[in-house]
Amino acid sequence: MGLKIRAKVAYDGTDFVGFQRQAAQRGRTVQAELEAALERVCQSRVAVVGAGRTDAGVHATGQVIAFEADWRHSLEALGRALNATLPEDVAVRDLEPCDADFHPRFSAKSRTYVYTAYVSAVRQPLLRRFAWQLEQRPDVAAMNEAARRLIGSHDFAAFGSAPSGRAEETTVREVLRADWQTADDRLWFTIEANAFLFRMVRRIVMALVRVGRGEYGPDEIEDMLESRDAQRIKGLAPACGLCLVDVKY
Amino acid sequence: MGLKIRAKVAYDGTDFVGFQRQAAQRGRTVQAELEAALERVCQSRVAVVGAGRTDAGVHATGQVIAFEADWRHSLEALGRALNATLPEDVAVRDLEPCDADFHPRFSAKSRTYVYTAYVSAVRQPLLRRFAWQLEQRPDVAAMNEAARRLIGSHDFAAFGSAPSGRAEETTVREVLRADWQTADDRLWFTIEANAFLFRMVRRIVMALVRVGRGEYGPDEIEDMLESRDAQRIKGLAPACGLCLVDVKY
Repeated sequence: MGLKIRAKVAYDGTDFVGFQRQAAQRGRTVQAELEAALERVCQSRVAVVGAGRTDAGVHATGQVIAFEADWRHSLEALGRALNATLPEDVAVRDLEPCDADFHPRFSAKSRTYVYTAYVSAVRQPLLRRFAWQLEQRPDVAAMNEAARRLIGSHDFAAFGSAPSGRAEETTVREVLRADWQTADDRLWFTIEANAFLFRMVRRIVMALVRVGRGEYGPDEIEDMLESRDAQRIKGLAPACGLCLVDVKY
Repeated sequence: MGLKIRAKVAYDGTDFVGFQRQAAQRGRTVQAELEAALERVCQSRVAVVGAGRTDAGVHATGQVIAFEADWRHSLEALGRALNATLPEDVAVRDLEPCDADFHPRFSAKSRTYVYTAYVSAVRQPLLRRFAWQLEQRPDVAAMNEAARRLIGSHDFAAFGSAPSGRAEETTVREVLRADWQTADDRLWFTIEANAFLFRMVRRIVMALVRVGRGEYGPDEIEDMLESRDAQRIKGLAPACGLCLVDVKY
């Protein structure tokens, strides 16, 4: 076949049912939009593989994809042609040739997500697609103290399930960074790990915000982790605040 | 009638044809959404007056409105009821009683708009609703030099027409602040004036970005101003970058 190419992809996840194409047609997926644009531009069917299978409503600024394509012009021209073809809520950049054995998911060394929240008694229409509204300011120092307990190699079974859904698969992940930053009424949680379980970031954010509200102490985060009990954490932070910002290889 | 109330309004202008209700039903307006919510909550027809008649696609974080309503509970409860009734792209806050002669437009001493742009060779889907994409970094120092020429009392006929459309109406306005700030790939233009002409901010932004691209020198902005010739400035910055952030009384 043609050349193997990798690229970065950004999308506004609001109007997608997720990154990954689904067997049953339940709505727009980023993968299907990318494949449709590639098929139109390259005049042949192209399969796209992504690094992270983001959920419905989750955004990306640094998703990584790879595909093989017959393309005789420059990769810059391919990028321009794709962006002219893609809907306005998806864009590709940084197209470059890659090894035939490069796999966006299996070759990845780490992924970084950022979760954004804002503190406001009243909802803010300009932030609603990209951030979670917290009605009262949480205790960010306590949230950071709890977040530190997550750093390192742990069994995160309490915070998510293996993506395959197979019980025998490991739920051990290594978290390299986990901290909250603030500016005015905004809060950002940055988490980097070798890989993530299904819904792990949104469950961690929910648990940490509960710490920030005084519902759990930072020590209870460690208890939850050790319990490996997925029933311990109630709820899930909304998808809109989550963004896949980087994948390292 | 009832109590006269003022409030601040924020909206994502993307899916509106503008703030002001239109004689012909051509799409959603912020005013009509506010009046519909007030009618539902107060159980009587309520007319809303706004400070600024923002265009289609223009946003607000600090629009000011006033209305008279029969309401027997607290204004905080009215705000909560309205926000529960309004669509998710509009929200009200800071409701307070005001004098019967308070008029959001005629009583205003100044308005402040912020225009947001970003520099990126590739469009960024997460910014598309709220910022103008500039493919190359403009010369911000030159833009600020040109912007300084606009400060003070001038006839801005070259940059817009009187809102009424009547030729005899003055096109003199007093600009109190006009400057660009930058952070990473973002640019913000903040402009405060006693009042604005129709499309004045977007025409000023377009002219200043042309200065930043080297198409005009900062002196030409002064020539344009003195010419009072609306034909001198080609084009209009896109509505999506513009936001009404504050109205002072």
